[in-house]
Amino acid sequence: MPAVEGTLTEFLDGQISALGGVDPALGRFATTTRDLVLARGKRLRPTFAYWGWRGVAAPGEPVEPVLPALAALELMHTFALVQDDVMDGSATRRGNPTAHRVFAGQHSDAGLLGDPDQFGVTSAILVGDLCLVWADQLLARAALPAATLFAARAGYDRMRAEAIAGQYLDVLGEAAPGTWSLERARLVARHKTASYTVQRPLQFGLALAGRTEAGVAAVDEAYNRYGLAVGEAFQLRDDLLGVYGDPVVTGKPAGDDLRTGKPTALLMLAHELADPAQRAELARDCAEPVARRAEVIAETGAVARVEALIQLRVAEGIDALADAPIHDETRVALTDLAVTATHRPT
Amino acid sequence: MPAVEGTLTEFLDGQISALGGVDPALGRFATTTRDLVLARGKRLRPTFAYWGWRGVAAPGEPVEPVLPALAALELMHTFALVQDDVMDGSATRRGNPTAHRVFAGQHSDAGLLGDPDQFGVTSAILVGDLCLVWADQLLARAALPAATLFAARAGYDRMRAEAIAGQYLDVLGEAAPGTWSLERARLVARHKTASYTVQRPLQFGLALAGRTEAGVAAVDEAYNRYGLAVGEAFQLRDDLLGVYGDPVVTGKPAGDDLRTGKPTALLMLAHELADPAQRAELARDCAEPVARRAEVIAETGAVARVEALIQLRVAEGIDALADAPIHDETRVALTDLAVTATHRPT
Repeated sequence: MPAVEGTLTEFLDGQISALGGVDPALGRFATTTRDLVLARGKRLRPTFAYWGWRGVAAPGEPVEPVLPALAALELMHTFALVQDDVMDGSATRRGNPTAHRVFAGQHSDAGLLGDPDQFGVTSAILVGDLCLVWADQLLARAALPAATLFAARAGYDRMRAEAIAGQYLDVLGEAAPGTWSLERARLVARHKTASYTVQRPLQFGLALAGRTEAGVAAVDEAYNRYGLAVGEAFQLRDDLLGVYGDPVVTGKPAGDDLRTGKPTALLMLAHELADPAQRAELARDCAEPVARRAEVIAETGAVARVEALIQLRVAEGIDALADAPIHDETRVALTDLAVTATHRPT
Repeated sequence: MPAVEGTLTEFLDGQISALGGVDPALGRFATTTRDLVLARGKRLRPTFAYWGWRGVAAPGEPVEPVLPALAALELMHTFALVQDDVMDGSATRRGNPTAHRVFAGQHSDAGLLGDPDQFGVTSAILVGDLCLVWADQLLARAALPAATLFAARAGYDRMRAEAIAGQYLDVLGEAAPGTWSLERARLVARHKTASYTVQRPLQFGLALAGRTEAGVAAVDEAYNRYGLAVGEAFQLRDDLLGVYGDPVVTGKPAGDDLRTGKPTALLMLAHELADPAQRAELARDCAEPVARRAEVIAETGAVARVEALIQLRVAEGIDALADAPIHDETRVALTDLAVTATHRPT
């Protein structure tokens, strides 16, 4: 989505000028924020929102009026990533230093007073907050009727609240693994990932189209089913990458999830399938090295089950679109996306 | 504003049921959040917004349709307080434990794994984020035309971005006191306090009235001048309380600002007025106890100057309303508020 990149760049450059005009230090703060936003990612959320809109938009309808709303999702995502990295104490993301590490470095380089790490955390929290507010400001620039934007915002707000609740449950899971279950791991996946990566962005795109005819309810329901299924598959792939991913590809240390003890669906399934000897090796207080624990998880059969589950969810997602009243071009694109967003990286 | 309290309580109870229905742990998380919101404060922001609206509303116009928007400001304020307390590492606020301390306590009580303090910080960041999103959801419930809400949101977004930028400058000031000046301290006060406590809430209330006649621009300008002046006076009073406030009244340790080295307008003014001997005692690396530093600040004459400045700003604020086309009842109420919000607590 090169158009989203242009919209983001133009918006962020405007904010840098405005804040730099207030105080040079604020201009530098905004510049660091821009670099964090633009350095990241696959722009999955704007992409899903684009197809959600395109699926029902009139043929040939220009995308420009909705671009700010699509790009807003990326600012919102930066908020989530930056603050998640603070909460997890992650030093790198996609091979680059995380926001709190960048600011801790600026603190050290400038020889400021106090603890660089604390300054880094504080600044990163504020970068996240600013991105969340900027997302709202960018969203408001979409050239759409106020009533359409209002309806789109309702879903957007629901998505944000779900993502925050999912993140709390995720953090709680690491602190209370004894109370966790496959059911709860799936709940986290639905809230933190499926809702926020696929389901709500698609529905947000649909709302941006401002259609009110009866058929729209069927599209909303199809996007809902597709989004939950593909979103869960996406999280299951992430679970596998968190244990077996190549650090060069994931940008995170190998076996990161095992080190933090995150009770993912993969791990919960391994516990369910494990025989007593395997269960002992998987126990949190067991001193087995991460590489061995990863082997045990595979030996339980959990990895094969999760791979199969990913295929099943992708198929369910694609199936949900079969009869939806959307353009064929969108059906094809979302079918491709279901596969590419959830496949094993090569 | 008892009506705001009722609106907040009803909204928060609804969120607790909804999240509790998803997972009991989320219900407890929402309950803790509600208690933090309801425990706090003077509801200054909803009060200013109410008068901003009432000043131009038709006589007898019911407040009910705008109540959700007024109450939203309080949720937004909880976001700011909770995350500010994380950044400052404050243990208490108004004599109660801060959010991150409450969650650290829950972690210890439940015997969870990991570091209680880290869990507390993470949970408090998420409580803040949730309050910010809930504020948007509550705002959307105001029974107003979409175009009116859209216009009110534009100012609201500006206010939030200003408050976040002001907080970053405030944090930077503590880390880089050598680069600070009275000018920069006043910039922080305008962004972090004046904009966010008085000026923008008043203008937000005005926008909620949805008036479009020519006279509204004069009201907006009067609110702007009043808000900046009274808001700065409010921050100057806070500067004095940060050094001389009674811990029983402020809920913070005595001399807290001197301990953290916050470069307030009061301290910057003391540096400007100090003779060489006084300046040596005020130097950050000087080992003088906090009580002595507080005395030195008063001896420079800075306290008397700040008290005079507060009176001047309050007078300017009241004067800004003199010819504004607002109802007399509002002029009287805002005149009272200018005094009571900035006076020395007894």
